[in-house]
Amino acid sequence: MNLSDGSVGLVTPQVAHFDEPFTFSSGAVLHSHELVYETYGQLNHAGDNAVLICHALSGSHHAAGYHSEEDRRPGWWDLAIGPGKPIDTNRLYVVCSNNLGCCDGSSGPNTINPATKEPWGGAFPQPQVKDWVRSQKRLAEHLNIPRWAAVIGGSLGGMQALQWAVDFPDWVEHCIALAAAPGLTAQNIAFNEIARHAILSDPDWCHGDYLAQGKLPTRGVALARMVGHLTYMSADGMSDRFGRELREGSFAPGDNSEWVFQVESYLRHQGARFSTQFDANTYVLMTRALDLFELAADYKSDLVAALSVAEADFLIASFSSDWRFPPQRSIEIRDALLAAGKPVTYANIDTDNGHDGFLLPNPTYEALLSAWMCRVGPS
Amino acid sequence: MNLSDGSVGLVTPQVAHFDEPFTFSSGAVLHSHELVYETYGQLNHAGDNAVLICHALSGSHHAAGYHSEEDRRPGWWDLAIGPGKPIDTNRLYVVCSNNLGCCDGSSGPNTINPATKEPWGGAFPQPQVKDWVRSQKRLAEHLNIPRWAAVIGGSLGGMQALQWAVDFPDWVEHCIALAAAPGLTAQNIAFNEIARHAILSDPDWCHGDYLAQGKLPTRGVALARMVGHLTYMSADGMSDRFGRELREGSFAPGDNSEWVFQVESYLRHQGARFSTQFDANTYVLMTRALDLFELAADYKSDLVAALSVAEADFLIASFSSDWRFPPQRSIEIRDALLAAGKPVTYANIDTDNGHDGFLLPNPTYEALLSAWMCRVGPS
Repeated sequence: MNLSDGSVGLVTPQVAHFDEPFTFSSGAVLHSHELVYETYGQLNHAGDNAVLICHALSGSHHAAGYHSEEDRRPGWWDLAIGPGKPIDTNRLYVVCSNNLGCCDGSSGPNTINPATKEPWGGAFPQPQVKDWVRSQKRLAEHLNIPRWAAVIGGSLGGMQALQWAVDFPDWVEHCIALAAAPGLTAQNIAFNEIARHAILSDPDWCHGDYLAQGKLPTRGVALARMVGHLTYMSADGMSDRFGRELREGSFAPGDNSEWVFQVESYLRHQGARFSTQFDANTYVLMTRALDLFELAADYKSDLVAALSVAEADFLIASFSSDWRFPPQRSIEIRDALLAAGKPVTYANIDTDNGHDGFLLPNPTYEALLSAWMCRVGPS
Repeated sequence: MNLSDGSVGLVTPQVAHFDEPFTFSSGAVLHSHELVYETYGQLNHAGDNAVLICHALSGSHHAAGYHSEEDRRPGWWDLAIGPGKPIDTNRLYVVCSNNLGCCDGSSGPNTINPATKEPWGGAFPQPQVKDWVRSQKRLAEHLNIPRWAAVIGGSLGGMQALQWAVDFPDWVEHCIALAAAPGLTAQNIAFNEIARHAILSDPDWCHGDYLAQGKLPTRGVALARMVGHLTYMSADGMSDRFGRELREGSFAPGDNSEWVFQVESYLRHQGARFSTQFDANTYVLMTRALDLFELAADYKSDLVAALSVAEADFLIASFSSDWRFPPQRSIEIRDALLAAGKPVTYANIDTDNGHDGFLLPNPTYEALLSAWMCRVGPS
């Protein structure tokens, strides 16, 4: 635990249990469900300082701080959340929940289906971004939060923030969508399909019921993660970091040992580590939710019409070397907001960090977030 | 068979058998080997009209024409090779061989190792681009070709053409490298590593000895091909072709049938078809050869020094939406050639076809090739 840089310190996940049935967009129903979440800072009496953080594909409710004294890695967005940080917990009450269908404690494929007493596995319903928004609204009501001072997220989290602003306009005062898009392109979907195909073609996938059968499709998940991870980095960033350097072997004539480039070694390590930590069904559900996301779906695919209903003040930011959701996709959102007459700040952060840019240190990015967040919450 | 568009018509692959040992850069030795090849047109008496076509990752010696009357698909570069076509077989004698280590008839992992009487499998030596060039030179000598009027290739084929110009300057009068690069980037290597990892983690891989064990790692090869194929297409090209259209299922509320986007269906089909046609060991060897390629390796990574030895007239072409080997990589080659004082024509073809651009119809591209090829061969 490193408290020197403005950490929220030790945090303990909470569990909210809901007995009211939850109906997905698909029509599938959970008769009861749980959401795991963390909060940082204090909700004020007026209830006007609450901020929701929405996580992306491989994220969780653990956005900031540490789970134990020995914990070396803080939450996934510790960079931005803490006392004196851009999302300042001295002023704001920050909430982050694990999405429904995920694998870090909220009801999902790796939790028990009450009807069968077995893990849900492949039988867990497919969530959509709008379903997550409705379930997060339940959590807000459970926490006596009347309205969000801001809903904030990057990538898939940014899509949730945008969906919040469209589906519950009077709930969202400010909306921050980082490295997001109004919907996926064919290329985006294709990368997700390859990741899913890797998982579904692993013999240990067992049609999604690997937990009940005591197996884990780690090979498929590792491959899926390697594909994903690669698309989060920029070509230039990878060249700077790995180049053509070898990790093992040599090019000396007569040396027949296996060559392993640094970048290969890195990707294998990332894939292997992730494959034992992340649930395969969740990866399939999350990538499906990404593919199915279309912000303007209820507005005949008219993005201006969709955003016209929003009442939020928007910050839209993209990252120059992000080729998964490139700046052009954020510009589409900005232009639709302008056409709808909505207040919007747009910034394109110059970085070699690719799509991962929204998670990594960058002085301009952090200064932008800090400056813009001054308008969020009670003054 | 369609003869209406200037086809070379029926062609029959030939086999050249070499009893002289072939030593790879790694030091591994084949005591004898075979190369399968096709030729189109006639070698003239002066021997100054011979053109070598080098194939890319999934190509073969079958570059043009048909193998039977019933054959519906011509060779992989029928677009460019034939009577009256850019590589005009009325004038030129065109040779294309299957690379050593490939799976279409030349000695490779799916042929018999004379020492064991079993398929080579994973024991076949790792070839490098410069090894292919030396083996192609043997074939040229076998065919009594004194020198190439041109060596031509796209992608990995373009790398062979460049290596020819550097390793055997007096053999190469013209060199055409399309959609190529002087070496792979970390991102390029990472995509290849994911493809290999998909194959090597398939339980039917059997450490490369799947043929001897009566198995085929089709799941891994299908995934590898899906990854590769995706990187050959451009994001815009995919959006135009597939968009977000569904192939199966619907988004209607209550419809729980599986959604399949057009692009998913397309990639699955491409992967499945390829997985039964292409040898897994060859895919591993070919991607390794790509990763290991560095045109200036023997010149202390100095590209200008490497190209200074060449005596060819060069045509370098890139394709605007190619993100696997983007225009910048061709510009590196062009600039090194200019710095070395070599004659070079450079063109960047405006297209949405991505890396596949060098294989697909495009009036500007075809006109460029036709015009430039006028300088090749006897006038």
